[in-house]
Amino acid sequence: MQEQLIDKVMDEIKKRMESQGAAAPTEAPAAAACAANPGMTEYVGTAIGDTIGLVIANVDPMLHAQMKLDPKFRSIGIIGGRTGAGPHIMAADEAVKATNTEIVTIELARDTKGGAGHGCLIIFGAEEVSDARRAVEVALKELDRTFGDVYGNDAGHLELQYTARASYAINKAFNAPVGKAFGLIVGAPAAIGVLMSDVAVKTANVELVGYASPAGGTSYSNEVIIMITGDSGAVRQSVLAAKDAGKKLLEALGGPAPSVTKPYI
Amino acid sequence: MQEQLIDKVMDEIKKRMESQGAAAPTEAPAAAACAANPGMTEYVGTAIGDTIGLVIANVDPMLHAQMKLDPKFRSIGIIGGRTGAGPHIMAADEAVKATNTEIVTIELARDTKGGAGHGCLIIFGAEEVSDARRAVEVALKELDRTFGDVYGNDAGHLELQYTARASYAINKAFNAPVGKAFGLIVGAPAAIGVLMSDVAVKTANVELVGYASPAGGTSYSNEVIIMITGDSGAVRQSVLAAKDAGKKLLEALGGPAPSVTKPYI
Amino acid sequence: MQEQLIDKVMDEIKKRMESQGAAAPTEAPAAAACAANPGMTEYVGTAIGDTIGLVIANVDPMLHAQMKLDPKFRSIGIIGGRTGAGPHIMAADEAVKATNTEIVTIELARDTKGGAGHGCLIIFGAEEVSDARRAVEVALKELDRTFGDVYGNDAGHLELQYTARASYAINKAFNAPVGKAFGLIVGAPAAIGVLMSDVAVKTANVELVGYASPAGGTSYSNEVIIMITGDSGAVRQSVLAAKDAGKKLLEALGGPAPSVTKPYI
Repeated sequence: MQEQLIDKVMDEIKKRMESQGAAAPTEAPAAAACAANPGMTEYVGTAIGDTIGLVIANVDPMLHAQMKLDPKFRSIGIIGGRTGAGPHIMAADEAVKATNTEIVTIELARDTKGGAGHGCLIIFGAEEVSDARRAVEVALKELDRTFGDVYGNDAGHLELQYTARASYAINKAFNAPVGKAFGLIVGAPAAIGVLMSDVAVKTANVELVGYASPAGGTSYSNEVIIMITGDSGAVRQSVLAAKDAGKKLLEALGGPAPSVTKPYI
Repeated sequence: MQEQLIDKVMDEIKKRMESQGAAAPTEAPAAAACAANPGMTEYVGTAIGDTIGLVIANVDPMLHAQMKLDPKFRSIGIIGGRTGAGPHIMAADEAVKATNTEIVTIELARDTKGGAGHGCLIIFGAEEVSDARRAVEVALKELDRTFGDVYGNDAGHLELQYTARASYAINKAFNAPVGKAFGLIVGAPAAIGVLMSDVAVKTANVELVGYASPAGGTSYSNEVIIMITGDSGAVRQSVLAAKDAGKKLLEALGGPAPSVTKPYI
Repeated sequence: MQEQLIDKVMDEIKKRMESQGAAAPTEAPAAAACAANPGMTEYVGTAIGDTIGLVIANVDPMLHAQMKLDPKFRSIGIIGGRTGAGPHIMAADEAVKATNTEIVTIELARDTKGGAGHGCLIIFGAEEVSDARRAVEVALKELDRTFGDVYGNDAGHLELQYTARASYAINKAFNAPVGKAFGLIVGAPAAIGVLMSDVAVKTANVELVGYASPAGGTSYSNEVIIMITGDSGAVRQSVLAAKDAGKKLLEALGGPAPSVTKPYI
């Protein structure tokens, strides 16, 4: 992996030198070539966080059994990425609201490419492949928004999520009640997450649904995570207060920690 | 770790600038200095994947007990690396075929230096240290080949392995039958592995021995892994079909994904 | 994370080019700006290993319950970092010796920012916030010393720790007897740790308190770790012999492996 990183840096240097040097205004953006459709019917698309979206119309029965999928789902939709689990779960939540699918499994890898958090694998079940495809499309499109309140620098990251009405993906992943407001608060390194959690629950009258830390509830990630529910105004207020506290601390540790995309809460 | 990476990049830049600039044809390959024998009898050698091979002629009894080694093995051979578990298990499988040793333990770390997969620690047991040393030598030598169908880019990696006749390392690691053809299919991020698995089992009449994913069967790596067995032609065909599908997807996600060494399947 | 790394490298290049080029003697050290106090009473400070130290005077009761803290501690001190668990546990051990606090939890994340080891989250309990703050201050100050026998290169790392008298943090983390000499020996990749362990226990008459490896006792890190106790001279001698062996091997694998700060043993 490291060799590739070095090469990437080399390319970056070359590019910047050329643009500093003098001309090279005809350079085409090479990276765009990556997202080329591979010409497979199973391919749906890619998104931020090294995320890929796929569908399988008829999962092989032998694989179906080994994956322990519910037999009623012939078709599955798949989203998975190297960086992010919260953003993907929130995106999947919108996808199940919008389509005739169910969340079958949510698995968290210890990843983020050397960062402190998770990657993920989420599987939607559907009776029709068109439904599975639609769910994956919706989820991929949501990711830009749900990465909006992820903030990072070299020392760690924060993640905040909020929805006025949780659906089945959030329920499956975090055991939070369906139909109620939901907030997710993540701080890495984990020490920062502890303080954000304390600030969040002291800010407004919310209910603490869960607490996860490196040794329990995470896949050994360097995060403390809480999930809160309650009145939508209170949940949003708690999340924003935790963000402010976390951002101050993370920036004290590692310098500016900008949003990965654009804040939405 | 990061500081060292920066330094490595700096050295690389310096080297490339000098070679571009004009002269510097007398530069000796500095990296070669690394593999210098440290002058210890326990040292066997190094190989790709930051792999080191070692032997201990007489393991200390107290350590022997804590490591829960079978008392009959006085001597152990050790191979372990930062990147790769599949390549090492396949290499160890050749080593046990070729020597008078047994596989004692196979452990997978969550590693690959910021990549999506595993590192490993494999221990051979032997009654004579010369046997343990020979097993480590064989395994180290095999690694160049067994890394041949590992393909990677910045977004993830694929790994394919195939043997016409599995032996005891494969049996220990994957519970696959000894003496039969065996195939290993790995995709990372895990979403790609799901699709490769489906393609593999649909391509030919093979038996699915196992399925591993971030939350089960891996050390929280961002991989989906399947192990297949059956007729050697069918296993090979399945593995190659999975490779083609996986390569298209991984390259759609992250650009060209070349072999780490040279494909062998 | 990678983008930030690239940017960091870019800055480094720019800096070095400017200093090579000619002038730029008026450049201020930009990094120093990071450690700015964020103006929160809960903030104590930062230290090596992306470590942050915090206090909470009155933990919210709902969070207190979810974190499963002993009800007698109103106040907590928190230290956590991306790189290092051993150094932090040793530092926390000095902190509990010096203050009126107890160790409440020690959790190990799989981290080190792409390296082979752990990050950590350690919580001190206290009845008074001033005690919690003092413990965190002591621990942060100790870290420079306890990182002294951490040696690393691109291929892995070694860690050695030694104290003539273990206290409650070491007891909690490693189950080692309080009041006796204690040594910690860590090698990564794990293969190197196996050999260091064998050397350590053969060097002097020490007792092996514990053994941890990727599949047991670690958070899937690529390390083998042993903990030893006994006569202080013997423990120290064992630790130093393991260091010598490990350094030779790690340097054979990845080149020079200097101390992260300054050796103390």
